[in-house]
Amino acid sequence: MNYYPHNKLKNICNKLLISVGIKNVIAIEVADCLIQTSLRGVDSHGIRLLPHYIRVARAGRINKIPNCKFKKTSPTTGIYDADHTYGHAAASFAMKEAIDLAENSGSGFVVVRNSTHFSASAYYALQASEQDMIGISCTNTSSMMVPTRGKKPYLGTNAITFSFPCEGEGPVCLDMATTQIAWNWVLKAKEEGKKLNSPWGINEQGDTTDDPNETIGLLPAGLHKGYGLGLVVEILCGILSNQTYGPHVSSMFDGDLSNKRYLSHFVGAIKISNFIDIKLFKTLLKNMITELRNEPPIDTNRPILVAGDPEKISEKKRLKTGIPIDDIIVDEINEIIEQQGLEEKLKL
Amino acid sequence: MNYYPHNKLKNICNKLLISVGIKNVIAIEVADCLIQTSLRGVDSHGIRLLPHYIRVARAGRINKIPNCKFKKTSPTTGIYDADHTYGHAAASFAMKEAIDLAENSGSGFVVVRNSTHFSASAYYALQASEQDMIGISCTNTSSMMVPTRGKKPYLGTNAITFSFPCEGEGPVCLDMATTQIAWNWVLKAKEEGKKLNSPWGINEQGDTTDDPNETIGLLPAGLHKGYGLGLVVEILCGILSNQTYGPHVSSMFDGDLSNKRYLSHFVGAIKISNFIDIKLFKTLLKNMITELRNEPPIDTNRPILVAGDPEKISEKKRLKTGIPIDDIIVDEINEIIEQQGLEEKLKL
Repeated sequence: MNYYPHNKLKNICNKLLISVGIKNVIAIEVADCLIQTSLRGVDSHGIRLLPHYIRVARAGRINKIPNCKFKKTSPTTGIYDADHTYGHAAASFAMKEAIDLAENSGSGFVVVRNSTHFSASAYYALQASEQDMIGISCTNTSSMMVPTRGKKPYLGTNAITFSFPCEGEGPVCLDMATTQIAWNWVLKAKEEGKKLNSPWGINEQGDTTDDPNETIGLLPAGLHKGYGLGLVVEILCGILSNQTYGPHVSSMFDGDLSNKRYLSHFVGAIKISNFIDIKLFKTLLKNMITELRNEPPIDTNRPILVAGDPEKISEKKRLKTGIPIDDIIVDEINEIIEQQGLEEKLKL
Repeated sequence: MNYYPHNKLKNICNKLLISVGIKNVIAIEVADCLIQTSLRGVDSHGIRLLPHYIRVARAGRINKIPNCKFKKTSPTTGIYDADHTYGHAAASFAMKEAIDLAENSGSGFVVVRNSTHFSASAYYALQASEQDMIGISCTNTSSMMVPTRGKKPYLGTNAITFSFPCEGEGPVCLDMATTQIAWNWVLKAKEEGKKLNSPWGINEQGDTTDDPNETIGLLPAGLHKGYGLGLVVEILCGILSNQTYGPHVSSMFDGDLSNKRYLSHFVGAIKISNFIDIKLFKTLLKNMITELRNEPPIDTNRPILVAGDPEKISEKKRLKTGIPIDDIIVDEINEIIEQQGLEEKLKL
């Protein structure tokens, strides 16, 4: 494992994106999202995806000269047409619109159409909390979750995020896939020749399994509850935007990388000071999570955490140690650096 | 088990509430909520709670002459002071305000303060969907969920509901506790001398257990995911309203029934036609859930359901058969009928 300072990586991200024809204003958002996500320890959605994002730009999935348009449809709602730019930029711009609406009218919700993969959902909801608002973000993804009673995948892992500003530390942020585990866990277990921690996979027969080699789908988080929540995300994204949904959403990695994906996202912001003094809100939230963290744990070496704590712990550490990247990903990034004629490669 | 026509039961509910001094406009909401909830098969939150609701009115927890007040704080937000009337009426009136805000400005969110138990959360979100809106409702409750890594309860079962109007049938409505099972399941297993289906209970040592007799708390739905979601609900209710939260929320049944509970709820509505033609939305949603229901099931006798299907199936059946009530509950209701001098008792 190799460690690299986050600023250095962000700079490389940005330069590589620009080198394949992406506008600076878009590249900044993609780079910022990937680096923040890696800093926060969500490696599956961070810098390791950069080679893929470069590939889809070269292949034509990403529109390099997008005509992104925001249409306000009421004092608190709007539709953002991403025109096949990166989902990171589209959802980020859409969240800025939602925050503006909420600033003026108390709340704001924007549906994003004609988009593509947007990495970690937390990146968008957190922006609202930086403005003292409740942040909400979610996205549909390609088919992976097997519905309760079913035997093959229908919904995606369909992540949903809620974020709240807090006194003296970053926002309390729940960013969860609605499946019990991410597909990445299956791939990792397969690579390492291990079993899954629990039978959270589904095999060809529709039975639960802990064998990553026979896993073809994922169990919803909390059984029918995660299935229901994944369906809610699909409605907020695929249906509300009149785009593809469920098994009709194309794969991120498989197939022709020039194909547009027509993914959709839903982002929202609610201004807290319309309900309660914002300072009081932050203090009360800090009091509650402090109380929670001090509750008796089963194992005194493993204290109770609250939503977003693992990410905060990682960010604090990685701001000092740098961001770890696997050799294979370093090689892939270096290959692209060479192809694009950038000066400095990542050292192995 | 005895079956009673829903209209007859609603009439009895209403009369009993009025007989203990509840205003008609409040009684109507409580009765309507309880009967709808029982029709939908959510027996734990339906008519069986009527004796409790009468008791708390007599004891003084319920303010019989409440000064309910709505304060609009922006074009899309407001605070509803329940002044210790029934949560059913307070949340229902608050949802009406949210719907009004959404009708005019695209979305509406209302926090309810100084409230008490509001029965099934679905009752409120469904009202928004009847007006072609996305409905959202949630509530905090007394401490029951053991946080991940913890050994004693902190959060409540903290239900959250999302509801969407659909073509040719009732709304697609997810109403879920954020614990894996309801406390009611534990009580039922205890009564019947059975084990829980899975180790969804937590014992004194903080270990998971399937023995209802040693269960002192409940596992979150989907482990840390349900814990995070329960925390989100607690923030939207207890923190946003500056009321009690977590273990500071008093018990519903234990202790002095004259004590006010200071529960809080959060209800919201988002107007769909600002994103997509409402007819198209309903058609697309119908298409998706029809597709889902026709996906291959593991057991052909148990087809795939979507959120709210069990409730729809129950409602259709019980509109014909009547609502089933246990002998014990019938006795309790009849005792109250006698005490209040109503003419007709329920036949056993």
